[in-house]
Amino acid sequence: MQFLSDNAAAVHPAVWAAMQAADAAQAPYDNDALSQALDERFSDLFGRPAWGLWVASGTAANCLALATMVQPHGGVVCHREAHIEMDEGGAPGFYLHGAKLMLAEGDGAMLTPAAIAAVIDPVRDDVHQVQPHAVSITQATEYGRTYGPADVAAIAAFAAARGLPLHMDGARFANAVAFQGATPGALTHGVAALSFGFIKNGGMGAEAIVFFDEGAARLARYRRKRAGHLQSKGRFLAAQIHAMLDGDVWLANARHANAAARELAGGVAERLLHPVEANEVFVALSAAERAALRGQGFGFYDWGEDAARFVTAWNAREADVAALARALAAL
Amino acid sequence: MQFLSDNAAAVHPAVWAAMQAADAAQAPYDNDALSQALDERFSDLFGRPAWGLWVASGTAANCLALATMVQPHGGVVCHREAHIEMDEGGAPGFYLHGAKLMLAEGDGAMLTPAAIAAVIDPVRDDVHQVQPHAVSITQATEYGRTYGPADVAAIAAFAAARGLPLHMDGARFANAVAFQGATPGALTHGVAALSFGFIKNGGMGAEAIVFFDEGAARLARYRRKRAGHLQSKGRFLAAQIHAMLDGDVWLANARHANAAARELAGGVAERLLHPVEANEVFVALSAAERAALRGQGFGFYDWGEDAARFVTAWNAREADVAALARALAAL
Amino acid sequence: MQFLSDNAAAVHPAVWAAMQAADAAQAPYDNDALSQALDERFSDLFGRPAWGLWVASGTAANCLALATMVQPHGGVVCHREAHIEMDEGGAPGFYLHGAKLMLAEGDGAMLTPAAIAAVIDPVRDDVHQVQPHAVSITQATEYGRTYGPADVAAIAAFAAARGLPLHMDGARFANAVAFQGATPGALTHGVAALSFGFIKNGGMGAEAIVFFDEGAARLARYRRKRAGHLQSKGRFLAAQIHAMLDGDVWLANARHANAAARELAGGVAERLLHPVEANEVFVALSAAERAALRGQGFGFYDWGEDAARFVTAWNAREADVAALARALAAL
Amino acid sequence: MQFLSDNAAAVHPAVWAAMQAADAAQAPYDNDALSQALDERFSDLFGRPAWGLWVASGTAANCLALATMVQPHGGVVCHREAHIEMDEGGAPGFYLHGAKLMLAEGDGAMLTPAAIAAVIDPVRDDVHQVQPHAVSITQATEYGRTYGPADVAAIAAFAAARGLPLHMDGARFANAVAFQGATPGALTHGVAALSFGFIKNGGMGAEAIVFFDEGAARLARYRRKRAGHLQSKGRFLAAQIHAMLDGDVWLANARHANAAARELAGGVAERLLHPVEANEVFVALSAAERAALRGQGFGFYDWGEDAARFVTAWNAREADVAALARALAAL
Repeated sequence: MQFLSDNAAAVHPAVWAAMQAADAAQAPYDNDALSQALDERFSDLFGRPAWGLWVASGTAANCLALATMVQPHGGVVCHREAHIEMDEGGAPGFYLHGAKLMLAEGDGAMLTPAAIAAVIDPVRDDVHQVQPHAVSITQATEYGRTYGPADVAAIAAFAAARGLPLHMDGARFANAVAFQGATPGALTHGVAALSFGFIKNGGMGAEAIVFFDEGAARLARYRRKRAGHLQSKGRFLAAQIHAMLDGDVWLANARHANAAARELAGGVAERLLHPVEANEVFVALSAAERAALRGQGFGFYDWGEDAARFVTAWNAREADVAALARALAAL
Repeated sequence: MQFLSDNAAAVHPAVWAAMQAADAAQAPYDNDALSQALDERFSDLFGRPAWGLWVASGTAANCLALATMVQPHGGVVCHREAHIEMDEGGAPGFYLHGAKLMLAEGDGAMLTPAAIAAVIDPVRDDVHQVQPHAVSITQATEYGRTYGPADVAAIAAFAAARGLPLHMDGARFANAVAFQGATPGALTHGVAALSFGFIKNGGMGAEAIVFFDEGAARLARYRRKRAGHLQSKGRFLAAQIHAMLDGDVWLANARHANAAARELAGGVAERLLHPVEANEVFVALSAAERAALRGQGFGFYDWGEDAARFVTAWNAREADVAALARALAAL
Repeated sequence: MQFLSDNAAAVHPAVWAAMQAADAAQAPYDNDALSQALDERFSDLFGRPAWGLWVASGTAANCLALATMVQPHGGVVCHREAHIEMDEGGAPGFYLHGAKLMLAEGDGAMLTPAAIAAVIDPVRDDVHQVQPHAVSITQATEYGRTYGPADVAAIAAFAAARGLPLHMDGARFANAVAFQGATPGALTHGVAALSFGFIKNGGMGAEAIVFFDEGAARLARYRRKRAGHLQSKGRFLAAQIHAMLDGDVWLANARHANAAARELAGGVAERLLHPVEANEVFVALSAAERAALRGQGFGFYDWGEDAARFVTAWNAREADVAALARALAAL
Repeated sequence: MQFLSDNAAAVHPAVWAAMQAADAAQAPYDNDALSQALDERFSDLFGRPAWGLWVASGTAANCLALATMVQPHGGVVCHREAHIEMDEGGAPGFYLHGAKLMLAEGDGAMLTPAAIAAVIDPVRDDVHQVQPHAVSITQATEYGRTYGPADVAAIAAFAAARGLPLHMDGARFANAVAFQGATPGALTHGVAALSFGFIKNGGMGAEAIVFFDEGAARLARYRRKRAGHLQSKGRFLAAQIHAMLDGDVWLANARHANAAARELAGGVAERLLHPVEANEVFVALSAAERAALRGQGFGFYDWGEDAARFVTAWNAREADVAALARALAAL
């Protein structure tokens, strides 16, 4: 009964089916019909002109998106615990040619206009200091928190006032949409580019970068090839994305995962380190308690000395979730 | 009846089956059992210690391999028409942080020790000129030529004498092995890293980088993550590679494709621009002849003003091949 | 009697005097009065709005100029024997973050619209091939040839029609101006940025990058700092430039050097490899002839097997020049 | 009466004299006798084999030194307020091709083994996190603190135990040597490369990078050219360095500056933010007090809301220092 992560879960049957339906040879790269349909698909979903590119990982999505916003001598304001800072092996330094991550503070790994201002206001506008070129937020955050439409809009407005485009790392965007109950468009108001995650949510190896500016998308297409991310059988990545969007599989999966997380959290409300707004549950647990849970067959990551992180996947089995919820509540 | 390329063909059934067999969640990234087994798998295949990493494209394979050999201020000797020079959108400049491609001449896009010497001998060993750090050859070449074991060994020995590690871009390595009838080990004697292609040969989205040095492989693992190429469900890439190697699917597919190419070439021997040693056939054809072939339903690329390129895929249908062979012979 | 190069000659007395006059502490970096006056100084000289930055080397000047024009995934069209390709140790790869030099042909290392077209016309506008982002020419060229106003204008117009800004490497711009007898403005019509050389012409360690666009200059100021080229006592570089421009020392020096070159060439017209239009003389000379000249005390570089290069400095002594001219004529 | 910085002060007469003595043409770049003598010169000074390269700025010195130690996917542990992090316009990101600065804490901008451990111990040795490749300390620190021989040795030993070479940013190394009364060798025990500053201490535009490993020096020579920092009249930079070392001008200058700083500090001991160990004095001063001092003609930088920084140059006039000391003591 694994609650280690959602990033290696099985692939949704609809995704498998769509991939197999795409088997016959088509034009290579992103010249196939499925890839070519992504712009329109995302325009429909977000309710405004959008351009969609597939890539094989969230790291590539984030970095290619940021590469359209940030010059090598600039910086990206992000949270101190953002994935791009903590877990991408220095990929932003690679893709942005040495640009700097400018680290902001905030509970639950959430940014606010004030937190961003605290980072950039002290920067003198001279050549000795790296100037901010963009802002990046994570939705849901690294602690499973989500921004509501007003939160995003406030950050976007603040960033725009400073001349900074806004990137959203949406590795768990689906979970955020499911929790907030807002439309994808409402949750990305003012966002210049979104890394729209599917892999943690039932996909196999396809994330989308959704741009809301055609020039940025055009630039990213060159950079994607240059990064070796333009796969020749790209139709299989496009097929995954379409399958996830068809019939709102992406939302159903996220709702399932979120519900499982809520169920886990239900019995340990007083132990929660963060409000549960997506599919991650951070619980204060002693080493003995963690050992006991593991003895019962539950897998999860320690989170520091005194806590654990449980992640519920799109296909979390209800029996497993119920068993873990009971075990937690019984502590 | 498409003979445009092999890079967007359908996926081999054995690959599909292996991917589906890998569906159940496993450890993420390359911590799954299939990925972990690649080092041994390639060691067995090549008959010497080897380390294997999957990536999603040949461009990524080539560039990550070269990044273990070349410092940013150095250069890579390759053919003027090598894929890394012509068709990777500047990826070597990106992955090698500005290192230079040093372009050599040679019929059929083949290198020789003499051709390499012609490039590097004039380079003064001073800081004003970019120094060579590695050599890269393509097997089969961009014109479907193949190096035999003695050719590779001669280049490797020459390169070693100059202190240059040798990279082999094996996007069509299988076709070369099939044509040469030599073992993979014999065809890579002295090679430091091989980009072992599967995608053009029945795979979906997995190439292997095979290193013959553990330190290089370790370095490449960091660089792969940094490039956003460490997919979280990496087991699906490893599964593709195992499926291709199991029962020598890779060789059977390549033999089929090579045989189809030979069949096409059979009737137009006097029109061939290059000997047919893999699955590509370059044929002198006037514009009118090309139009006539297209009128009969055949798809292919023009190759300059007076020729055409035909590529046979692993699953080329025998009837299609026979039809095209007849049409060519009838010209 | 050295005719090896002009790049290590003594410093003009006026430059020394200006540097010493600048000794007293001023605002650091480029905040001193001398540095601040460069924009106006170059605007006056070129007859249109210009922005001037000092740097310590021609390599830095060229690369910082190009960095304002070329994105990392793009390319720069230049001559196959351009300094940026041959002699800068890979600096363009470094400063341009892996962008590519796209090599054109042309006698005397000169480019023409047709030569540029021959390089860029075959480039498909797709993501697999590096797209041109800029053009760079050298004035005077690596073989001492010069472009007239109409030549520059034609190249600039062609480049503009293709959307490509034009850079001029003017390491010997003074010699070109002196030879052409045109104004600096007329010789840079349509040029976006000029590397204006002073070091080979009597300066110590200051070249200017002259931008004709304020945004590019602003960008270059950030990149200059980032490259470690913003010296804290920048006033000493600015002083050199002002001293060279005051009273047209730069032109007088160049005229002297050019005249010396013409004198050398006078007696060996039939042996010249290139017309002498600046301060470099390429002469067909056998090994025996070269040895004989060296035996008479003349220093110079061999140029391949059958020729030699003579460079005359701003301070070439008339007696030395006359002696060499006689020796050449006597061969 | 300026106490703003030492980085734009006048040039020492001995430096002027040496530069003028080097005026006659010599071999270009670093092939002149003065440049060629630097290795021996520094070997003598440090009492062990050393290799010395001139560059035009401290930023270039730091970054070229680090480039020999750090791969693009690695990191450099330095203090949160180190010059390379705060004041170099992102140069480390440029020169290290996107490597990361890993920020440690410590009073007075000083590092300790424990502070370094606090940064690197939490880094998992996996590809998702940037691994440390080197450590950099500043001597004297950004707050004018100095490391003694035992401090440096302890850090070097700790770093070595972790496999990390140690870089020392010695923009004010002379001041540290003068304060510590230790030999240059004793103060660099275990250091792999030192940025040895001369510009703030009476030089014009030459810093030295001193390597204690020949391979690193050789690598740096390529990278220096590639960065456009190999000046063709390099003899003028070498001359500056020799002049500073001849007769221990560097030490006399540093002692003078340090003494001036001590004099300033003498009357405001209770207001000092940091012990005065070099030529910088940080004094708690209200806005009104700062205004009063400025009203008396003293120039200096505010340091936050409640303090000021005074820097004494190598040529600080005794009368000015005495006047400021009196004014401070009278507050």
